[in-house]
Amino acid sequence: MAGKADRVKARLPRGLVDRLSVDIRAVEEMVAKIRAVYELYGFEPVETPLIEYTDALGKFLPDQDRPNEGVFSFQDDDEQWLSLRYDLTAPLARFVAENFERLPKPYRSYRAGWVFRNEKPGPGRFRQFMQFDADTVGAPGVAADAEMCMMMADVMEALGIKRGDYVIRVNNRKVLDGVLEAIGLGGDANAGRRLTVLRAIDKLDRLGMEGVRALLGEGRKDESGDFTKGAELSPEQATTVLDTLSINIAELTAGLPDISGIPAGAKDSGSLSDGLLELSQISDLCRAAGYGDDRIRIDPSVVRGLEYYTGPVFEAELTFPVTNEKGETVQFGSVGGGGRYDGLVSRFRGEPVPATGFSIGVSRLMTALKNLGKLETTETVAPVVVLVMDKDVTSLGRYQKMVSELRQAGIRAEMYLGGAGMKAQMKYADRRGAPCVVIQGADEREQGAVQIKDLVEGKRLSEEIEDNQEWREARPAQFSVSEDELVAAVKRVLEAQATERAAQ
Amino acid sequence: MAGKADRVKARLPRGLVDRLSVDIRAVEEMVAKIRAVYELYGFEPVETPLIEYTDALGKFLPDQDRPNEGVFSFQDDDEQWLSLRYDLTAPLARFVAENFERLPKPYRSYRAGWVFRNEKPGPGRFRQFMQFDADTVGAPGVAADAEMCMMMADVMEALGIKRGDYVIRVNNRKVLDGVLEAIGLGGDANAGRRLTVLRAIDKLDRLGMEGVRALLGEGRKDESGDFTKGAELSPEQATTVLDTLSINIAELTAGLPDISGIPAGAKDSGSLSDGLLELSQISDLCRAAGYGDDRIRIDPSVVRGLEYYTGPVFEAELTFPVTNEKGETVQFGSVGGGGRYDGLVSRFRGEPVPATGFSIGVSRLMTALKNLGKLETTETVAPVVVLVMDKDVTSLGRYQKMVSELRQAGIRAEMYLGGAGMKAQMKYADRRGAPCVVIQGADEREQGAVQIKDLVEGKRLSEEIEDNQEWREARPAQFSVSEDELVAAVKRVLEAQATERAAQ
Repeated sequence: MAGKADRVKARLPRGLVDRLSVDIRAVEEMVAKIRAVYELYGFEPVETPLIEYTDALGKFLPDQDRPNEGVFSFQDDDEQWLSLRYDLTAPLARFVAENFERLPKPYRSYRAGWVFRNEKPGPGRFRQFMQFDADTVGAPGVAADAEMCMMMADVMEALGIKRGDYVIRVNNRKVLDGVLEAIGLGGDANAGRRLTVLRAIDKLDRLGMEGVRALLGEGRKDESGDFTKGAELSPEQATTVLDTLSINIAELTAGLPDISGIPAGAKDSGSLSDGLLELSQISDLCRAAGYGDDRIRIDPSVVRGLEYYTGPVFEAELTFPVTNEKGETVQFGSVGGGGRYDGLVSRFRGEPVPATGFSIGVSRLMTALKNLGKLETTETVAPVVVLVMDKDVTSLGRYQKMVSELRQAGIRAEMYLGGAGMKAQMKYADRRGAPCVVIQGADEREQGAVQIKDLVEGKRLSEEIEDNQEWREARPAQFSVSEDELVAAVKRVLEAQATERAAQ
Repeated sequence: MAGKADRVKARLPRGLVDRLSVDIRAVEEMVAKIRAVYELYGFEPVETPLIEYTDALGKFLPDQDRPNEGVFSFQDDDEQWLSLRYDLTAPLARFVAENFERLPKPYRSYRAGWVFRNEKPGPGRFRQFMQFDADTVGAPGVAADAEMCMMMADVMEALGIKRGDYVIRVNNRKVLDGVLEAIGLGGDANAGRRLTVLRAIDKLDRLGMEGVRALLGEGRKDESGDFTKGAELSPEQATTVLDTLSINIAELTAGLPDISGIPAGAKDSGSLSDGLLELSQISDLCRAAGYGDDRIRIDPSVVRGLEYYTGPVFEAELTFPVTNEKGETVQFGSVGGGGRYDGLVSRFRGEPVPATGFSIGVSRLMTALKNLGKLETTETVAPVVVLVMDKDVTSLGRYQKMVSELRQAGIRAEMYLGGAGMKAQMKYADRRGAPCVVIQGADEREQGAVQIKDLVEGKRLSEEIEDNQEWREARPAQFSVSEDELVAAVKRVLEAQATERAAQ
């Protein structure tokens, strides 16, 4: 026992949390359902370690102004820098590059795992969180991107989220890149302004068109009076960008849309037209497979933060309303996203290796499913508690034998292992949610009997004001049986409780 | 694509490995079986994050001469030291201390998770590995330790390891501590020599009594001529220690054993006699519950490395023979261990909090089960591959529709997403282990038909030298069906293959 002075403080670093049994069981159930969909699509599990060489992970996190910001890093014995992975995509790229020759290509794989971000934590923002990814490496065409979108729609429905409560929104990095280039914002010198533009677009949901227009121009003052500096585009440039956000999918399938302010030459060639064509093909492929606009929707306002995306990007959004911390009704929002990252494996190799993938934010999706009441975890019945009335080795041995027999019959059971007396043991059993307790004192032992106390029934009886003679007779809260009938008697209690729960 | 000069090397830091699908599926199956036993014993899942404050974890790793050796550590923004957990016990102690008031006590919990050791990796020694622990916190008596041992025996049998192929060996830290004190090796000044004695005892399996005797005395020269310095005990002291290792359990239950060289006073009081009494009680409790000496065995030579143990310690050993890297036949050895750690939660609190637990080395146990042929993972059938003969959006849409239909029928299926031609696509399907491929070229499309090629049957036919007319008629390797019969036809192929596999 520690003296007050040298006592260590029991606390977690900020942004890290413990997971309790309800959440662990819920995530397990959810992950199993997602995994079943990934397997159905022909994906295989593969996992990488949590630590990688820092240079192998690269720097692709959004909003990183200082080197190594966002990542937990430390030096190995040989002075080389190691990092905890910040996502599951960068390590997968390393894995594929390292094992390139022996993998079938396209290589379809999935993995769930912890990732780490060394950033300021906030409400719902953690420094360790779980992602569940699927990736296809070595597939150059948009059919692979379309498949990712369809698989994500299937995942949502497998989890019980009904059609209309989710949408997979699809955009293409090439579209915005093309527009920005067409209005003269190409090149390394404009990288900072391009980022400001993308951040502004990312706020479309929250601020609306006029809010974004302000952020594309001089800047915007929010309700609290804080001023956010804008990208300083001219009104014409801003209009061109905003027009892009409203591109209509119907126009897309009929041919390239009319975007004001973009010269015909820039529109018909290069990045912008490639991007639009790809979106149109993704839309067609999804329609052909029976996924309509209500499930997979082209939306040119989708911006994904990670900097390794090179083509189509997608986002899984839950559209049902929730109340946020300010008491406002908002859409639940994103629970995952992904896109094409053709440059990530190629960093390691002398040849192009196209790839596309999707990442689900497991904790966030769990929160959503809880909101929807879709995570009634398989009801785990708490253990039967055998009370310890006498502590001599012979008595303990006898209690031990009882729990062994219950367990052999497949019944969760435990012997009370604390140091407390009868009353505290009953309180313990109650706190554990035990369905019943088994009691054997000296008297019962002598008679070869045990007392079984039904805690669920006992609780009901004590709550009922009127005397319920019928119930009491049907299922007494406490009764005595011969020791060799223990297992059968406990089984009857558990079955009666299960029947009652089912009837509720 | 990276130029040769700025290409990043795709490699993992030493001591870290990727996990492939066969191992992932095997571990999942194994973990599910272990979890079922833990649940049956009334344990609940709880998980802690992978990062903790360094001081919360404490320094309990064996053989740590420099501070922080063995642990990956790094500083947080506020300069506080963080570490990756080196086991699951120290974080659990922090969790219990932090949430003490709201947990039922005794608190039974389990968790599987990655742990990290920053040490020199070797064959079968990794810097990231998985443990699967169960712990009871707040249980002062040996009944909790006995239960841990019985639960581990149950785990071994749940995994299919038969009685006689495993044993849970039990010792007590107090026994060796008591003997060392009795021969004058107590106190802080002798900490180094005590460690040398414990390390010597730990080698009993490998070196035998005489080898250990040498290491307790002046030291020992091994076959390669290397000299290991000993603990420099006198011959009498060494004999006393060695006598302790041969204490007989039969004598234990009858009363305290006769250990030469230990004065009666030292034997009958304090640590040594407490330790022996506890071992005797553990033995009695296990016997009472039906666990004989063949499953749970008191063995005073068990030494566990971690320095937080304060009482009973246990080790799960697999006793079947395997061939080691030198070609020698040896016992497989330890796959897990644990013990009582009464001081670990108390580090954080002003009151004693007794605790005991067990940790399974998941990778090592998986290797063992593979050796025993006990991990025939549930056979996962590889996906059906729909070949891509034409790449126009209309054709792709039609292929996409086929895979969607197969998936809706619960059949793993994928459309080929690479850029290669027919021959390479067939090779891909073969590499994937696909049960069959679906082919639709322009001709079939016109007729509303598809070709199905049974790859298992095709392989068999090509391997058979004699013409097997009967088989060919019963199940042709390639056949054509109308497009709307696709799902039914593929189902028939899969069923025929399943029947054949079952018959093998």
